[in-house]
Amino acid sequence: MREHTACLYGIGVGPGDPQLMTLQAFRTIQTCDIIALPAKTRQACHAYQIVEPVYPEIANMQVVCLPFPMLTDPDALRKAHDGIYQQIAAYLEEGQNVGMLTIGDPSIYATYIYIHQRARQAGFRVQMISGVPSFCAVASKLGISLVEGSEQLHVIPGSYDVRASMQYQGTCVYMKSGRKLSELLDVLEPYEAEGRCVVYGMSDCGMPTERAYDSVEGLRRAEGYLTTVIVKFEKQ
Amino acid sequence: MREHTACLYGIGVGPGDPQLMTLQAFRTIQTCDIIALPAKTRQACHAYQIVEPVYPEIANMQVVCLPFPMLTDPDALRKAHDGIYQQIAAYLEEGQNVGMLTIGDPSIYATYIYIHQRARQAGFRVQMISGVPSFCAVASKLGISLVEGSEQLHVIPGSYDVRASMQYQGTCVYMKSGRKLSELLDVLEPYEAEGRCVVYGMSDCGMPTERAYDSVEGLRRAEGYLTTVIVKFEKQ
Repeated sequence: MREHTACLYGIGVGPGDPQLMTLQAFRTIQTCDIIALPAKTRQACHAYQIVEPVYPEIANMQVVCLPFPMLTDPDALRKAHDGIYQQIAAYLEEGQNVGMLTIGDPSIYATYIYIHQRARQAGFRVQMISGVPSFCAVASKLGISLVEGSEQLHVIPGSYDVRASMQYQGTCVYMKSGRKLSELLDVLEPYEAEGRCVVYGMSDCGMPTERAYDSVEGLRRAEGYLTTVIVKFEKQ
Repeated sequence: MREHTACLYGIGVGPGDPQLMTLQAFRTIQTCDIIALPAKTRQACHAYQIVEPVYPEIANMQVVCLPFPMLTDPDALRKAHDGIYQQIAAYLEEGQNVGMLTIGDPSIYATYIYIHQRARQAGFRVQMISGVPSFCAVASKLGISLVEGSEQLHVIPGSYDVRASMQYQGTCVYMKSGRKLSELLDVLEPYEAEGRCVVYGMSDCGMPTERAYDSVEGLRRAEGYLTTVIVKFEKQ
C-alpha cells in the first residue's frame, strides 16, 4: 500500500451556536486545503453557516459541495456514497487535506461516516473531530439534566417505533421528530396525564425561531422542522 | 423576589482533550469572578486539569474547591448538596459570577445539576454551557460511528442491569464500567461468539494511558479506571 500523507477530517461543528464549536474544530478547519460540504451550496449548508460567523476567512477557502441524496434503495445509496467518496479521494491522492463539515458530532447520525469508512478502508489517514450533539444543547437551553445518577439515556431517531420506546426507563430523546411529532404526542399524552412521565421539547434550537415547551399540549403547537422531544419517565 | 444580576454557569469542559473545549466554555471561564471545582484541590480536579493547558491564566483566578461527597443515603446527600449550594449562593448574593467546571456535558451524569436546580429555584440566573460527552470522544478515537440511520443509542451508567440491556437494538454505551466490567464481559461473550454484536472499548480516553479494544477478549486486559464499552447489536 502506498503511503498517504493527506488526511480526511470529519469535523463536528456542534449543534448550531457557533460558540459551541470546539477549539479543535476551529483550528482544524484552518489547516485544511479543501473544505467539503454535504450540501448543494455554501448557503444551503447548515454546518457552513455555523462556522462562518466565527471564522469568516472560510469564505476564501476552496470549498467543494457534495450533496448526499435522500435515497431509500440501499444499492442506489451505496453507489451515491461511492461517488462522493471518489471525489474526496481524488483530493487526498493529490496530497490535499480535506475537512468535511458535519453538524453536531460526527459519530451520531452523520452521513460523513460513510465517506470515513471508505477512506479508512482505502488506507487514507482519517480523523474524526468530536462535536457537541444537538440533544445536549437542547437540555442546556431548557436548563435541565438529561440523565442523573443511575438513569439510562435512550436516543431515538425519526424512524422509531414510538410505542416500543414506552418500555424504557430513564430518559428518551426523540430526534428530528418533526414529521412524526403528532404520532409521538398521541402516544405520550396518556402517560403524561397519569404522571408517569414529564415531557420537554425544543424547536429550532439555537436559531431565531427557537421555542421551548414543557408539556404535550405545548408541543402540539410546535411548528419547527427540527423539534427535539425529551421525555423523563418516572421511576417505577 | 429580588433581582439577581450574578449568574451561575455550569461549564462543560469536554471529555479530556483540552482542544475539545468549546469556544463558549473557553470564553465563559474568562468572564467569571469565581471558578468552582467539584474536587478537594485544583490538582485533584480533572476538569481544572483540562482547562489549564489552553488557559494557563486560570492559575491566577479565584478558585473555590467544593468536593461532592460519595454518599448513598439520599437525605445525607441532599444535605451535602444544600451545603455546597449555600457556599455558591453566598458568592452570587455578592454579585459575583460563578463558573462551576464539569467534565463532559453538564446535562449528562453531572453533579453540577444539583447546584443548578437549587440556584434556579432561588431565582438566580443560571446557564449551562454544553460540552462534548465522553462517549462521542471515544467513538471518534476509535474511528467508528455510534449510530447511523434508524439505529437507537442507549447510554447505560455504571449501576446498570447488564442483562436487561441485551434486549436493546442499535448501540449500547456502557459508561464508567471499570468495576462492573468483568460482569459485563461475561454477559457479552456469548453474544459476540454468536455474531450477534460487535464489541469495542477504550480505557482512559485522552490520557497517556489510553488503550483501544475491539473484542471482549481484548477488554479482559483493560485495567483503566475509566473504561467505556460500545456494543453494536446486529439487526435482527
